[in-house]
Amino acid sequence: MSNVELPLGYLFSGHHSGVKTDETSPDYSIFASEVDALCVGVFTQNLVCAAPVEWCRDHTPHVTCRAIVVNSGNANACTGQQGRQDVVAMVSAVADELKIDNEQVLVMSTGIIGVHLEMDKLGPAAHTGCIQLDSTPAAFLAAAQGILTTDKSEKIVHRCIETSQGVVRLTAVAKGAGMIGPNMATMLACVLTDAELGIEDAQRMLTVSANESFNCISVEGHTSTNDTLLLMANGKANGTVLAGGDLQTFADELTSALIELAKMIPADGEGATHLMEISVSGAAGDSDARKVADSVGASNLVKTCVAGADPNWGRIVSAAGYAGVDFDLKDLQLELNGFLLFRNEMPIKFDDTEVSNSMQNTFVTNIDLVLGQGTGRATIWSSDLTCEYVKFNSDYHT
Amino acid sequence: MSNVELPLGYLFSGHHSGVKTDETSPDYSIFASEVDALCVGVFTQNLVCAAPVEWCRDHTPHVTCRAIVVNSGNANACTGQQGRQDVVAMVSAVADELKIDNEQVLVMSTGIIGVHLEMDKLGPAAHTGCIQLDSTPAAFLAAAQGILTTDKSEKIVHRCIETSQGVVRLTAVAKGAGMIGPNMATMLACVLTDAELGIEDAQRMLTVSANESFNCISVEGHTSTNDTLLLMANGKANGTVLAGGDLQTFADELTSALIELAKMIPADGEGATHLMEISVSGAAGDSDARKVADSVGASNLVKTCVAGADPNWGRIVSAAGYAGVDFDLKDLQLELNGFLLFRNEMPIKFDDTEVSNSMQNTFVTNIDLVLGQGTGRATIWSSDLTCEYVKFNSDYHT
Repeated sequence: MSNVELPLGYLFSGHHSGVKTDETSPDYSIFASEVDALCVGVFTQNLVCAAPVEWCRDHTPHVTCRAIVVNSGNANACTGQQGRQDVVAMVSAVADELKIDNEQVLVMSTGIIGVHLEMDKLGPAAHTGCIQLDSTPAAFLAAAQGILTTDKSEKIVHRCIETSQGVVRLTAVAKGAGMIGPNMATMLACVLTDAELGIEDAQRMLTVSANESFNCISVEGHTSTNDTLLLMANGKANGTVLAGGDLQTFADELTSALIELAKMIPADGEGATHLMEISVSGAAGDSDARKVADSVGASNLVKTCVAGADPNWGRIVSAAGYAGVDFDLKDLQLELNGFLLFRNEMPIKFDDTEVSNSMQNTFVTNIDLVLGQGTGRATIWSSDLTCEYVKFNSDYHT
Repeated sequence: MSNVELPLGYLFSGHHSGVKTDETSPDYSIFASEVDALCVGVFTQNLVCAAPVEWCRDHTPHVTCRAIVVNSGNANACTGQQGRQDVVAMVSAVADELKIDNEQVLVMSTGIIGVHLEMDKLGPAAHTGCIQLDSTPAAFLAAAQGILTTDKSEKIVHRCIETSQGVVRLTAVAKGAGMIGPNMATMLACVLTDAELGIEDAQRMLTVSANESFNCISVEGHTSTNDTLLLMANGKANGTVLAGGDLQTFADELTSALIELAKMIPADGEGATHLMEISVSGAAGDSDARKVADSVGASNLVKTCVAGADPNWGRIVSAAGYAGVDFDLKDLQLELNGFLLFRNEMPIKFDDTEVSNSMQNTFVTNIDLVLGQGTGRATIWSSDLTCEYVKFNSDYHT
């Protein structure tokens, strides 16, 4: 963290409020801007969405946003009218401390579904969290930790972006290791920048970047009730609205940063021992390529053979075959970690041990399918399926 | 088996040919009719289909069918031109023994994908298999066992059906415990009857029954390359073509028999400790109900909490929410094993231990969702996801 330049004009805090039982785990974070900031969001497409998602949908895009408050340990999802009241209480506790309006505070929650928030803990948490707000890397790290649930570590990326108006900074944090599926595929993510952005540019860029990053990852394909990605831009770098080539540079860096961040999620997937990178090319169109990649990435039979470092390519080919995409098996080609395993409808002789070793010894398993139909392509990232995933998720709630 | 009346005019055999390494496991079965029989089929919708599936597609409906030969241990899938030649060799070995035409023999294979058949073993197997053909229950049982792979036991159902022309008999066998997903969702199944059926009636009935049975089950949603359901009808009961009420009675019994058989597959799912029966009602239409049931049944997060006897209803509700079906959360109601867990958007207080015990102590876990939109309904059957499934499938191939 010491070499990193955080975006200007932001304050952070993360501490333990008591929602999580582990007293050493921060579970309450605030990301605040010293000045009014633009804020745009992208949200879960699950019909069953949590109360904080409803609040954020209703309050973005927003041009005078000042704070994002996040609690972990409880998702405030499927909690009905009481859940909506708790959101207002959570927001107003922070607004009162910061002497701003409720509408200037956005909120995210993550954790167990269907349990009401313990407001007796979250009220005092707002006071402590606001007192602790600071611009130091340590404060930022605490905030990044306070949003985690089953994640093994915090997920952070930084960018310093050169523009014709000088440098602007971008920092993004995310949490997520389970209940991860496409259609806004992380639980929570928050992008902070000191660039000045036009509201329509910001919303468009965030939507595009989400589609190329968080919407391309999966742990078990279970789209959560709480998926939220927010971007705050406070213009503290120089106050000039980015446009033209500068805007394009920023957009490219935003996408690159969010892909880097998104890949950390399946890499940290519950019990995961491999990150699967599935690339499909030669499809009739990009959406066909995506369907094939999704079908392979979602197959438990593929995920288990990756976990077992088993080059069982028949499972991959057959998962491509039921994706609902038309291709000619004669044109299908499969490479696994660069080894050619299938071409011309035929099993290719290969050294089982050599390929298995390559799977065993690398964290990323590359699955490359070529369909031979056109120029459509897609890449997605998924995690393998291990016994630890099953154990963890068999005994999470009770 | 002793009380069962097998359909008249059929002969069976099952023995160990050497394709499977376990010498005690039968791996080669023949189901033969003493007279020419009608045969119709329903097949995998996977674009990547095995060579024996291609043969059966090309040779059904067939009115002078005499035998179905099945090998387990090797699926003859993704084996290219050599695989097609091996099918012809496998078929002609049986045809030569029985002194019939190649076209009168249908063939199924199941097991590992992408490995060529050992024809040096399957040639002699035809000789042994044909010599052993017999009409006894013991011969039938051996044939039912010879088609199994990872199944824990044989899967058989019988029906004696009263018609105005007298009794007709129906016996069906299936195999399947993994690589099971909708769209012709068993690996292999074979229905034998001594009824006389019209060819169009037979095809229509089999398609309808498959949709209501095998296409409603899932282990991990991975549609196999080899799924094949064949029905042979040899008319040996009385030789009168079923029609009118008799035909309807037969159709109903066929569907009931295939549902009974199909449910045995997820019940025997690799590593499964629970059969999940997911019923959705009150959808706008049956297809909407089916989408919601599929989404819940395919969710690893739901499957693991069933394995752990954990009434983590939030996962079920959220899986319904991302099914791509429109409903109002306010109208959604969830019962688990008859306990009401969610209604009116709100968590309902229930006794965790009592519900968990009901899951722990019963093999079938009933998940009932009511959407409150219309009269659409669907029921599917799935298996839970356990550590044993992962272990098994991490180390199957190598």
